Amino acid sequence: MDEKLNISLIVIGDELLYGRTKDLNGQWLAQFLFKEGIFLNSIQFVSDSNEKIKKALDYALDESDIVITSGGIGPTKDDLTKSALANYFKKEIIEDQNATIIVTENYKRFKRDWIKSQNFYHHFPVDFVAINNPDGLAPGMMYVHNKKLIFSGPGVPREFKSMVEFEFLPQIRKYFSQKILPREQVHIRTMNVPEEKIFTELCPTLWEDLSRYGKVSSLPHTLGIDIVVNLSGHLDFNLLKQEIIQHIEKSPLKEYVWQYGNRPLSELVFDYASMKNITFSFAESCTGGLCSSKITDLSGSSKIFMGSIVSYDNKVKNNNLGVDPDIIFKHGAVSFECAQSMAINARLKLQTDMAVSITGIAGPTGGTDEKPVGTVYIGFSSKDKFYAKQFTFKGDRTRLKDRFSEMALLILYLELKG
Amino acid sequence: MDEKLNISLIVIGDELLYGRTKDLNGQWLAQFLFKEGIFLNSIQFVSDSNEKIKKALDYALDESDIVITSGGIGPTKDDLTKSALANYFKKEIIEDQNATIIVTENYKRFKRDWIKSQNFYHHFPVDFVAINNPDGLAPGMMYVHNKKLIFSGPGVPREFKSMVEFEFLPQIRKYFSQKILPREQVHIRTMNVPEEKIFTELCPTLWEDLSRYGKVSSLPHTLGIDIVVNLSGHLDFNLLKQEIIQHIEKSPLKEYVWQYGNRPLSELVFDYASMKNITFSFAESCTGGLCSSKITDLSGSSKIFMGSIVSYDNKVKNNNLGVDPDIIFKHGAVSFECAQSMAINARLKLQTDMAVSITGIAGPTGGTDEKPVGTVYIGFSSKDKFYAKQFTFKGDRTRLKDRFSEMALLILYLELKG
Repeated sequence: MDEKLNISLIVIGDELLYGRTKDLNGQWLAQFLFKEGIFLNSIQFVSDSNEKIKKALDYALDESDIVITSGGIGPTKDDLTKSALANYFKKEIIEDQNATIIVTENYKRFKRDWIKSQNFYHHFPVDFVAINNPDGLAPGMMYVHNKKLIFSGPGVPREFKSMVEFEFLPQIRKYFSQKILPREQVHIRTMNVPEEKIFTELCPTLWEDLSRYGKVSSLPHTLGIDIVVNLSGHLDFNLLKQEIIQHIEKSPLKEYVWQYGNRPLSELVFDYASMKNITFSFAESCTGGLCSSKITDLSGSSKIFMGSIVSYDNKVKNNNLGVDPDIIFKHGAVSFECAQSMAINARLKLQTDMAVSITGIAGPTGGTDEKPVGTVYIGFSSKDKFYAKQFTFKGDRTRLKDRFSEMALLILYLELKG
Repeated sequence: MDEKLNISLIVIGDELLYGRTKDLNGQWLAQFLFKEGIFLNSIQFVSDSNEKIKKALDYALDESDIVITSGGIGPTKDDLTKSALANYFKKEIIEDQNATIIVTENYKRFKRDWIKSQNFYHHFPVDFVAINNPDGLAPGMMYVHNKKLIFSGPGVPREFKSMVEFEFLPQIRKYFSQKILPREQVHIRTMNVPEEKIFTELCPTLWEDLSRYGKVSSLPHTLGIDIVVNLSGHLDFNLLKQEIIQHIEKSPLKEYVWQYGNRPLSELVFDYASMKNITFSFAESCTGGLCSSKITDLSGSSKIFMGSIVSYDNKVKNNNLGVDPDIIFKHGAVSFECAQSMAINARLKLQTDMAVSITGIAGPTGGTDEKPVGTVYIGFSSKDKFYAKQFTFKGDRTRLKDRFSEMALLILYLELKG
C-alpha cells in the first residue's frame, strides 16, 4: 500500500460491457479525485454477477484504501451490488432504520409515496451505513473493513456525482485526513509538430529535464501533442509551473505551444470574449452545429454567442447566409472563397463582432484527389479583416467533425486573444 | 473458464485515471465484440506502471481466453506496455525482422523516413508476433501463452479500432473458431413510465416472463426506461424477438414503447426521412446546434437535412428566423408561442418539408417557479400542421441539452413515421 491515498472504482453493469451505454462515472471520478489529491488506482468494469463482483473486490481491496462501486443499487432484479457485498463480507441483510428514514425522505422530496413492500431500498447488510442520495431514491452504502472504506453509489451519473461529492468525500476526509496528498498537472499543449520531432530533434533532453519535476506523459490530442508534467507533494505548485513554462519558453518548442494548461477551447473562447465584450457567431457547414453546441454547453454563453447558421445545403449557403452562388459554382463549397464569404456574411447577418465559418469534407464519401476527406477551410471575419485557412486532418467522420470544430475554436481563440 | 469465448481488456495510461482523456476504446470494443459473439468479461483501467500492468494481466488471464491491452506502444518513455509484457512473460526484447518490415512499410505509407535509431518500434519480446497497424506507425503485438491469446494495440482510438478489426479479429477467429457463440439483444425502449410502475403495477410478471428468453436488464435512459433481453446460443433470434414483441404488445406496457430496438434516434430520423424523401431543418435555441450536429454525424445526411438556424439570442430569433418580437415580448422566448413560431419560420426560411424548434432552459440559471430549469418547448411544423409541446427534464446543463435534443428528434421521428 502506498503512502498516498488510493481509490479503486468498480463499475458494475452488463450494459457497459455489452456496449449499450457509455460510462460517464469513471471519467468524472478520475477528474474529481485528481483535484482532491486522491489517487485513482484503477477502474474495473464488471458484469452483474456475484462472482465477478467478488473478484473485482479482491483486486480493489488489495491495492487501495478506498473502494467505490457504481451501479446495481436500484430496485430491479439485476441490481445485485447489495447482496454481492453482503456475501463478500459475510453479512446478513436486515431492515435498517437509517435507510428507512433516508428512503422515506427521498420519496417525500420527489413527492411520491413509498410503500415499503414495493422495494428493498431499506434492507441493508448488518454494519453497513446507509448514505443519503441527494438526487435519487436508493440510498448509498458505506462499510468500514480493516481500516478500509467501501462505498456503493448509484449508476445514474447525476446521482453518482452528487453522492460522491456531498456524501462520500466528507467521509473520506474524516477517515483519511492525513493521507490526502495535493497534486497538480502542468500541461504543455502543442500544435503542428510530431511527437518524435519534439523529443529527438527539437528538445532531446526535454523528457529528462521535465522528469526532475515529476512524472512526464506525452499524448496526441485533437490539435497536436500534449506534454504533461505531474507534480505532487506539499510544494509550491505555482512556482514549479512557472519554472517549467520558463524552460519551454527558452526552447525551440515555444513556437508550437498554444496553451500552458488544460482548459477546453470553448472555455478559453468564452473567457476572452466575455472579458473583451466581443460577440461572435458561426457559419457551419461540415461541422453541422458542433461549434455552436460546444459554446452553448457553457452557462452564460448567451452574452457573447448570438447564434449560427448551419448552412449544410448549398441553397442555405445562398439563401440564408447570402453566399454568392457564383462562388460555389466557380470554386466549390469547400474552398477558401466560400469559407471567406460564409464568415463575412455570418458576421453581417447575425450582427456580431466576429464570425467563424467551417466548410470541409467530413467523409467518408465526397473526397477528391485535390480535396481529400479531412480537408477543411476555416474562415474568419471581424470588422477589420477576413481570411480563410486550409487544414487537413485524419479520422472518421465524427472525429473529423470534432477536429474541424476544435480548429475553428482555436482560430477564434487566437483572434480574441489578439 | 466459461464455454463462451471471453476477452478482458486492459486500458493502460495515466491520462485516463487522471481524468485528462476520455476512453473511447473500451466502449467501442464492447459494442464490436458483442456483435461478433465474443463476451467482454471486464475492462480494467490501470496506470503506466509495470506493477499495475502485471496485476491487471494476472486478473485478466485468470478469467479470459483472450487479453487485449490498449495504449503504451508508442515511442515515448511512458510507453511501457512492451517492456511490461516482456517482463511478465520473462522474454528478452530483441530486434524483430517482421516488426522491422511493418515499421518500414508504415513509414512509407505516411511518406516519412524512418531512422532505426529514432525509436524502438522494431524491438520485440522473443516469441511475440508483430501485428500490422493499418492506421499508424507502431506495430501491435500478439503472443500465445497456455492456449490463450494476448494482444497489444495502440491507445489512439482510430488506430486501435482498425487493428482490432482487421488484425486481431482474424487471429481470434483462427484460434477460437469453435468457441464463438452468437448472441443478440432485444431492446424494449419506453417513455413516460417510471421503472417501478412497469414491474410492480403494469406488468408484475414481466421480469420472469422475459427471463425465460435470457438475462434481463432494466436501465434508465435519456427518454425513459429501457428493458433489454439478452439472447444467446445457436437459436432463431428473429423468432424469439418476435415472440417477445408480441408478449409486450399484448401487455399494458405497449402504449409506453417507442422502439423495439436500440438504434439512435438520429438514425431513425435519417432512415425515415430518406425513405420518404422528406427534407427538414431545425430552429435551435437552448440546444445550441446539438440536434443539427447529431444528424450531421451521419454520412449522407445532406440529402435530407438542409440546415438550421441556431437562434440563441432573441435578436437572431427576430432578425434571422423571423419570429415576431411581440410574441417574445408577450409570452417569453421559452413558450408554446415562440416554439411554434420558430418551427413555422424555420420551415419557410430554410425551405424544408418539416421543421422542429427547441426553446427551453438548460440552466443552471434562468429558471423560474413557473418555468424551472429543465423546461423545454418543442415546436413542429409541416405543410399541414404545426404545434408545440412542453416537457420537463432533470439533469445538469449538458445532460439537459442532450435530453432536449433527443426529445426533438423523437418528435421528428414520430412525425416522419406518420
